[in-house]
Amino acid sequence: MGLNTNRVEDGSGSGHAQQETTTVSILVPSETMGPQELHGVCLPPQKTTFQKLRHKLSEIFFPDDPLHRFKNQTNVNKILFALHFVFPVFQWAPNYNLTLLRSDVVSGLTIASLAIPQGISYAKLANLPPVIGLYSSFVPPLIYAVLGSSKHLAVGPVSIASLVMGTMLNDAVSYSLNPVLYLKLAFTATFFAGLCQASLGFLRLGFIIDFLSKATLVGFMAGAAIIVSMQQLKGLLGIVNFTSKMQIIPVLSSVIEQRDEWSWHAIVMGFSSLACLLTTRQIGLRKPKLFWVSAAAPLTSVILSTVLVAVFKLHDVATIGQLKKGLNPSSANMLYFHGEFLAIAVKTGAVTGLLSLTEGIAVGRTFASLKNYQVDGNKEMIAIGVMNMAGSCSSCYVTTGSFSRSAVNENAGGQTAMSNIIMALTVLVTLLFLMPLFRYTPDLILAAIIVTAVIGLIDYQSAINLWKVDKLDFLACLSSFFGVLFVSVPVGLTIAVGISVFKILLHVTRPNTGVLGNIPGTEIYQDLDRYREAQRVPSFVILGVEAPIYFANATYLQERILRWLREEDDWIAANNGSTLKCVIIDMTAVTAMDTSGISMVKELKKMLEKRSLQLVLANPVGSVMEKLHKSNSLESFGSNGLYRTVGEAVADISSSWKAQL
Amino acid sequence: MGLNTNRVEDGSGSGHAQQETTTVSILVPSETMGPQELHGVCLPPQKTTFQKLRHKLSEIFFPDDPLHRFKNQTNVNKILFALHFVFPVFQWAPNYNLTLLRSDVVSGLTIASLAIPQGISYAKLANLPPVIGLYSSFVPPLIYAVLGSSKHLAVGPVSIASLVMGTMLNDAVSYSLNPVLYLKLAFTATFFAGLCQASLGFLRLGFIIDFLSKATLVGFMAGAAIIVSMQQLKGLLGIVNFTSKMQIIPVLSSVIEQRDEWSWHAIVMGFSSLACLLTTRQIGLRKPKLFWVSAAAPLTSVILSTVLVAVFKLHDVATIGQLKKGLNPSSANMLYFHGEFLAIAVKTGAVTGLLSLTEGIAVGRTFASLKNYQVDGNKEMIAIGVMNMAGSCSSCYVTTGSFSRSAVNENAGGQTAMSNIIMALTVLVTLLFLMPLFRYTPDLILAAIIVTAVIGLIDYQSAINLWKVDKLDFLACLSSFFGVLFVSVPVGLTIAVGISVFKILLHVTRPNTGVLGNIPGTEIYQDLDRYREAQRVPSFVILGVEAPIYFANATYLQERILRWLREEDDWIAANNGSTLKCVIIDMTAVTAMDTSGISMVKELKKMLEKRSLQLVLANPVGSVMEKLHKSNSLESFGSNGLYRTVGEAVADISSSWKAQL
Repeated sequence: MGLNTNRVEDGSGSGHAQQETTTVSILVPSETMGPQELHGVCLPPQKTTFQKLRHKLSEIFFPDDPLHRFKNQTNVNKILFALHFVFPVFQWAPNYNLTLLRSDVVSGLTIASLAIPQGISYAKLANLPPVIGLYSSFVPPLIYAVLGSSKHLAVGPVSIASLVMGTMLNDAVSYSLNPVLYLKLAFTATFFAGLCQASLGFLRLGFIIDFLSKATLVGFMAGAAIIVSMQQLKGLLGIVNFTSKMQIIPVLSSVIEQRDEWSWHAIVMGFSSLACLLTTRQIGLRKPKLFWVSAAAPLTSVILSTVLVAVFKLHDVATIGQLKKGLNPSSANMLYFHGEFLAIAVKTGAVTGLLSLTEGIAVGRTFASLKNYQVDGNKEMIAIGVMNMAGSCSSCYVTTGSFSRSAVNENAGGQTAMSNIIMALTVLVTLLFLMPLFRYTPDLILAAIIVTAVIGLIDYQSAINLWKVDKLDFLACLSSFFGVLFVSVPVGLTIAVGISVFKILLHVTRPNTGVLGNIPGTEIYQDLDRYREAQRVPSFVILGVEAPIYFANATYLQERILRWLREEDDWIAANNGSTLKCVIIDMTAVTAMDTSGISMVKELKKMLEKRSLQLVLANPVGSVMEKLHKSNSLESFGSNGLYRTVGEAVADISSSWKAQL
Repeated sequence: MGLNTNRVEDGSGSGHAQQETTTVSILVPSETMGPQELHGVCLPPQKTTFQKLRHKLSEIFFPDDPLHRFKNQTNVNKILFALHFVFPVFQWAPNYNLTLLRSDVVSGLTIASLAIPQGISYAKLANLPPVIGLYSSFVPPLIYAVLGSSKHLAVGPVSIASLVMGTMLNDAVSYSLNPVLYLKLAFTATFFAGLCQASLGFLRLGFIIDFLSKATLVGFMAGAAIIVSMQQLKGLLGIVNFTSKMQIIPVLSSVIEQRDEWSWHAIVMGFSSLACLLTTRQIGLRKPKLFWVSAAAPLTSVILSTVLVAVFKLHDVATIGQLKKGLNPSSANMLYFHGEFLAIAVKTGAVTGLLSLTEGIAVGRTFASLKNYQVDGNKEMIAIGVMNMAGSCSSCYVTTGSFSRSAVNENAGGQTAMSNIIMALTVLVTLLFLMPLFRYTPDLILAAIIVTAVIGLIDYQSAINLWKVDKLDFLACLSSFFGVLFVSVPVGLTIAVGISVFKILLHVTRPNTGVLGNIPGTEIYQDLDRYREAQRVPSFVILGVEAPIYFANATYLQERILRWLREEDDWIAANNGSTLKCVIIDMTAVTAMDTSGISMVKELKKMLEKRSLQLVLANPVGSVMEKLHKSNSLESFGSNGLYRTVGEAVADISSSWKAQL
């Protein structure tokens, strides 16, 4: 076994503190234990409670060690790195050149042609005046260009956040009845969304958005897309009186009940432009080189339909109407930090903030991995948060990185955040000079643009994949889908997160266990059920436990292990095997243990001893060893109860039996 | 490596369904994959979704395979086993003999001498008339004797459940103002407690009580004990007007504010009997053979103090007063299934039911493991639940197995559940003939009995141990302690359970990772930090991941793995090592993976490929393999990306590099 060299030859019992100094870190586990051998299994290096806490906290909050670039640097470099760190613009601006500018101008103009009609449309989705959507496509992109670290993120209003904000605020206040209060709440919610995003990034709590798993989001987005599309029937059918509720049932019944309001002009124009937009979208998807067809389609259809309405004077088609020219007015005085509606503003801010953050980070990461650069999640959160807080003071509502526009940006050859600046400048020109042109733009074209945009959020392929690969993920997906469709956005999301967490707990509460066998000719021990070539080792039961041992599963594991022994006894009786003498538990996957787990192991050992069975732990991980040590349980295992691998345990114990004969 | 014999020589690509028939279960993972070798790593046997669901459900609900005794038996035996299963009394009654009876009579009389004064005291703790405590020591023990499987459990009212019931009901209704409604609610709560307990057992959801971990209970019991003891100052000091609140602050201020009501007679008698009881308790603890001293003390002190009050006519000492003779009256007509207080009754029932169940099961398990027999948790739950439902119809309130009385029972030599029957018969005699004797029993002696009983619940040794072994367990303990002390029982318990669950999630969200090295002379790979003798393998980074890869940690793990690579590069640069060529992830402890985990692994592989690094997975468990297969990711790993152990991977890849040279 080649083990002897590793054994403790030192009987001084001088404690484990020696690990810091000796090169061969064999363990003499405690003063009371004396010169016993643990077959090479050793404790982790001793650390104080404070050191452990510091290590744990740094793993929780700084897993990527963000300051590693500052190590061993001159002061000048440190300042330079700090500038780069806080303002990523300094990373790319010094090397910026004309070639890059040319690509960025093309892509910037392209995404502007998308951003203008989408901005107007999404603002309507949030029950806000159309111009707010344009304001939101001007200030936030400029701020992001300075602070953001993604090169491809196209910033502006997005459908999901707009929808959620519209729904949640509309439950409290109606825009048509009290427009000023509604606006105040929208800006306040935006402020809190930004605050929440920036704090998550600053406090390095970004992992919270990981709890909105992909499965949850697939279901959520599909549900939201369906509701939004149904709601757009208002515009597409020309209905005037429409429900403001966001569940599928009131929306559909509203469509049917208001049949007498359906307008044939609207229907023909609406559905034909929808058909055009969907066709161009398909073209863009099928042939990425023709992306400009789908990118240019919304603006083109806006222009065409506006001309049509203006020329033929179609008075029964609802239009946007007069829009005020000019730059973003300040809205800092409209933030609302007291009174009865503050709670709803904070709640709306938190939900839209988390959702838009999830979208922004996901989009940023997707393109970063596509183009092989890194995006720092926590820094991105700060950038998005600051941009929203600044936005809330300049008449913008919640913005983030849009998936569709970022894809167009990347396709159109965008190279740096400069494309966001070009886009913002285009929006600026629009705001200053082109606003009167939107007067006759019909609502139905905005509805068609929204439907085209959100239909891409229905990712049924992913849902099918979830079903195939992981049924519980699929369940989380379904529940967020139906939750959003029939109840509400927060309820749907809460249920889905609950199911995801339940899944983790279920895995811990009922972990896999199995009997292992030896694969002939190797020292490998694998599950007998899975590896048909694996063979039982006579007189041993080798059990694999595939989870940490916690209060939540200690009782289960004890019962389950006893059942394995009972079944093994039955097997031996049926096959005339040799009687059991030793139970080895492979602890490799027991990655942690709490006090209940320790008690369980102690009690199991006692129970087995009463049945004249030896209990051996193979390969306990560092933290488990440490807890066994601290709870003074190592003594009872010490001499022949701990091995580094199952193979060593089997070999050593078998040979000791042979020696006894 | 002795591996060649295990390789796939079969190029038919006939799919993994062959595992059911071939003896050598080497994998040909999918039709699309062709004759590639996976170095012996194989998929688990193929199962349908239904089979997997059945397996999972049977692991969740029937981990102990309760029906295994029915397999391969004749019908007569099956009926016999079924009788034994439902009524454990049939297991021991046929072999019952005079020797056993003698021990059970002694122990039954001993616990009766404890149960009578404790029953009266605990009923007062629940704000109920004293006689209810005696009723509750008569019917439930008889039912438990028939249905219960523990031989040592002494059944009756217990302090914690009494306290919680008294607190929670008193918040809604005051016994002194509306005694009938209060009684109705108490019986209804008892009914729901029993229903909840029996359903948990019947639906085999017993694992829910595991979530009240030992750490939580240590804190909770200590907090409850302190509050209860403080409350008993009412009796010990002779205070008449006392707060009915259960937080420490109102109780203490009540003690101080009512100073003018302190009665010197009460104080002298109360504290001297308390001193006696505590002394006898200490004697019982120190010398288990003298257990009868502490067992007889409560009844003796009741008799002595009653005689004292009766003889000296101490009118300023509050006494129990006239008690009605007679058996339990029916209370089925007092159950209350409608109206405004139903919710509070159900809630009280659920909380007291869960708490008393936890105590009963824990006590049963403790003595079963001490005496080396097994107690079936789910069956015990049904027994305790039925006994409480029956109790609620016969004027009893919540009962369970009491820790203190069960210990006395075991010490006094109780052998079977017959000791419960003897105890019940003694209580019956008391109820029928001895009730007038309690007329002059002073309240203060009941207070002293309660304090003596609950003081044993303060287990500071365990708390110190929790601090030493597991800081987060200690935090859960502290929070339930302070939660109970300063807020309320449900809040304290909820926070503690929350912390326990958070601990599980934290371990999953931020799992341990580490670089492994080879221990010279072996094929063992262990953490470099922990095993000083472990050595880096040139050109490889071997990473151990100690948790399932889920949505909650996929991003973290990706960042962390990249950071390990960066640090490894730094180390190589500093030590002139050979450049990295291969990253091996030891997946032994990655016991599960969801769709986010799969995406992460795929993406990591792509990122490493761009850096010309090979990604290898060593020893993926069955469920992970299955998911990789179903998500069509195996192909990308197939040829040289999967090995059964790190050792095999290193050996095989190194030799392939040598062959290339």
